[in-house]
Amino acid sequence: MTFNRRHLLGLEGLTKEEISYILDTAESFKEVLSRPIPKVPTLRGKTIVNLFFEDSTRTRISFELAQKRLSADTVNFSASTSSVKKGETLRDTARNIEAMKIDMVVMRHASAGAPYFLTQCVEASIINAGDGQHEHPTQALLDLMTLRDKFKDLSGLKVVIVGDIAHSRVARSNIYGLQAMGAKVGLCGPATFMPYEAEQWGTEIFYNLDEAIEWADVLNVLRIQLERQQKSLFSTLREYHNLFGVTRERLERAKKEITILHPGPINRGVEIESELADSDSALILAQVTNGVAARMAVMYLLSGFKTTENF
Amino acid sequence: MTFNRRHLLGLEGLTKEEISYILDTAESFKEVLSRPIPKVPTLRGKTIVNLFFEDSTRTRISFELAQKRLSADTVNFSASTSSVKKGETLRDTARNIEAMKIDMVVMRHASAGAPYFLTQCVEASIINAGDGQHEHPTQALLDLMTLRDKFKDLSGLKVVIVGDIAHSRVARSNIYGLQAMGAKVGLCGPATFMPYEAEQWGTEIFYNLDEAIEWADVLNVLRIQLERQQKSLFSTLREYHNLFGVTRERLERAKKEITILHPGPINRGVEIESELADSDSALILAQVTNGVAARMAVMYLLSGFKTTENF
Amino acid sequence: MTFNRRHLLGLEGLTKEEISYILDTAESFKEVLSRPIPKVPTLRGKTIVNLFFEDSTRTRISFELAQKRLSADTVNFSASTSSVKKGETLRDTARNIEAMKIDMVVMRHASAGAPYFLTQCVEASIINAGDGQHEHPTQALLDLMTLRDKFKDLSGLKVVIVGDIAHSRVARSNIYGLQAMGAKVGLCGPATFMPYEAEQWGTEIFYNLDEAIEWADVLNVLRIQLERQQKSLFSTLREYHNLFGVTRERLERAKKEITILHPGPINRGVEIESELADSDSALILAQVTNGVAARMAVMYLLSGFKTTENF
Repeated sequence: MTFNRRHLLGLEGLTKEEISYILDTAESFKEVLSRPIPKVPTLRGKTIVNLFFEDSTRTRISFELAQKRLSADTVNFSASTSSVKKGETLRDTARNIEAMKIDMVVMRHASAGAPYFLTQCVEASIINAGDGQHEHPTQALLDLMTLRDKFKDLSGLKVVIVGDIAHSRVARSNIYGLQAMGAKVGLCGPATFMPYEAEQWGTEIFYNLDEAIEWADVLNVLRIQLERQQKSLFSTLREYHNLFGVTRERLERAKKEITILHPGPINRGVEIESELADSDSALILAQVTNGVAARMAVMYLLSGFKTTENF
Repeated sequence: MTFNRRHLLGLEGLTKEEISYILDTAESFKEVLSRPIPKVPTLRGKTIVNLFFEDSTRTRISFELAQKRLSADTVNFSASTSSVKKGETLRDTARNIEAMKIDMVVMRHASAGAPYFLTQCVEASIINAGDGQHEHPTQALLDLMTLRDKFKDLSGLKVVIVGDIAHSRVARSNIYGLQAMGAKVGLCGPATFMPYEAEQWGTEIFYNLDEAIEWADVLNVLRIQLERQQKSLFSTLREYHNLFGVTRERLERAKKEITILHPGPINRGVEIESELADSDSALILAQVTNGVAARMAVMYLLSGFKTTENF
Repeated sequence: MTFNRRHLLGLEGLTKEEISYILDTAESFKEVLSRPIPKVPTLRGKTIVNLFFEDSTRTRISFELAQKRLSADTVNFSASTSSVKKGETLRDTARNIEAMKIDMVVMRHASAGAPYFLTQCVEASIINAGDGQHEHPTQALLDLMTLRDKFKDLSGLKVVIVGDIAHSRVARSNIYGLQAMGAKVGLCGPATFMPYEAEQWGTEIFYNLDEAIEWADVLNVLRIQLERQQKSLFSTLREYHNLFGVTRERLERAKKEITILHPGPINRGVEIESELADSDSALILAQVTNGVAARMAVMYLLSGFKTTENF
């Protein structure tokens, strides 16, 4: 198996072999991260620009750490202090950055398709770090890695994504990735959060959280994006919590062990009960740790390296 | 003597031996800083996050330089672009950062006790870079280092801290540090700036600057924090300068040499006369230089290194 | 030839030999940038602070990349999060930064002369990255480098700078640099954009773009700074484009090949037609690439290195 892609725009279209190859590479890097000096010289002299047109802390820091541990040089670019304010087009921004001999661009943008657009105008490798409501592939890779660490084989595993599916790039990437790995996917949320195309995805659809729990082995609980939500999609946070908040009581009622994922940051007491988020069922911190390793793997493979034996 | 602490939250409770050990280590690093390549590989592969919930320039840059000169990897996190805005709790922010395998957190926060709180939820070493009106221990260490450079032994040295004692974390850390080192501490300012607990500290209290100068060997002149001050605590800047502004004329009247410290940034013409700030009595730039060395020493010792001989 | 300057405040006063020496050094660095690992250890252990009192993306990133490729340590300081807001004087900011043992300061400031002022109060080397409407020397160096790459010898080359000459630091640095290299300089723009001192510079002055094109071998098209422009200097963007917008139609009318430079970011459809900006006549991306090399050369030479043979 070789990995021949130059960009990672999404998990849509990736094969089980490709995803498994990324995850295997990520496991090797996770071992590197446990060493006293968690660093490899692999990308020394490569320059990676983090081109964030939307605010981000955890994703940017995770990428930046991954870059430092690969010994790459990193330049941060955030829209708030940029020539974007001076009316420059995205294409000009990208081509200018490329003219400075950048090897790779990690991009977050409010518009779906912006990273794809970049691949059409620059030579550098492009990694999508979240584009609008489209995809957030490295998030889904770290979710898959965390589930694989626990369940070994994802075939037949039943994963329900709970929350605002329609507006979530995390949900879309998870659906593509989980299905490629052979898992069964369910979606659960109020009807206003269910996307138009849900039926075509071949997923189970639940409008009742208890029925979803009944069916599921894993719940991937999405964050209610308080800062983005249009108020009309649900009445109150309290009502959302009553209907779709994941609590220990609900899980105990189902009388089986359920694994919890959450992409963070958590709204404690809204989409998930605070104590549950800290329980052993929740793999939330393992997800964060795997995130650095998964991003190292992606940047390593997109740079054209074929094997993980030389570090 | 070994230094066994894992965190530096304040100077309260540190012994003379511990402080002297930090300062001795800092002197070794000061020698490193005078080399053509002022760098040691000591913390190579260690990752330190600068977690600043309040704006800061000089403290952040000083820590960042200290980190680079120890060859550590640095990640900057400032609250203004962070998931804090998305409603994440401090504990979740901290645990997420830790899950990325951070070795040390340098934290500034508007709330007293926030760095202590971090020590309760993460494994990383925590350095307090200023918490509310509580402590700012590395500032006091660089002040002590600067005084030791000049006076050798601090026993019996009379240091008056002038300004808004009540709201100053610099004052608190200096009081604890100076008293541990055997110095005598005086406090001077308007009654509205004198804290409730001042009497329990065993310090001299002066409401008249000329009397304080009469007594003192050293004045540590605090910055009037124009951007924070509630106007009701003093009438005008002009009146403050007339009553508590340190000027050459006042010092000449005392007919003895007085050493001046100031943590910066200086409000020239308010708490200190402009020419005096630039005179040989003022060690303000020596404080800044010592700041980098003192912070290198703290990060070095908290990382578990016991001797300074191997660099 | 040796290069003995400690600062680069502008191109005014630099000799042809000095500029040629910088450009020759830049060509060597351009070769370094084409290597698989585009890095040299030349400035290892040197610390350079990027002191930007005005927002900037491309210039800051270009300097930062140049610094990383020279293996220098970089600290970024932007006014928006700085103690400047706390009322600190520029001199105190500078001296504090210097007390932390900084070797070089790259400074952008809204006031003409601010970098010169810094040279009077600190020991570090100062590079002007744009000061008010005065100079932006590294921009002009990369323009000269790009023209030399194409024309070999600049003697007698006719270059017209088109746009808001009066308020442009790019124009001023280009005029000094081009004239030192023996080129003939023309200025073209509405009368309200023509500076008072234009006649003393010994440049041709055109108020009609077609006449300028008739005369020119090269057009250096300045950006209309939409965000800074006082509306009264020209009526509408549409009128500006009609009178001074550079288009293929105009160039074809002149029946000769004209080379186009633009410092970026481009306002497509205002000062330059979009298709023309992407044509082979435009060297805009070559300028960006040369920018990193030219800035490496400047930082290298100001650090006291005399030859480019050892990397």
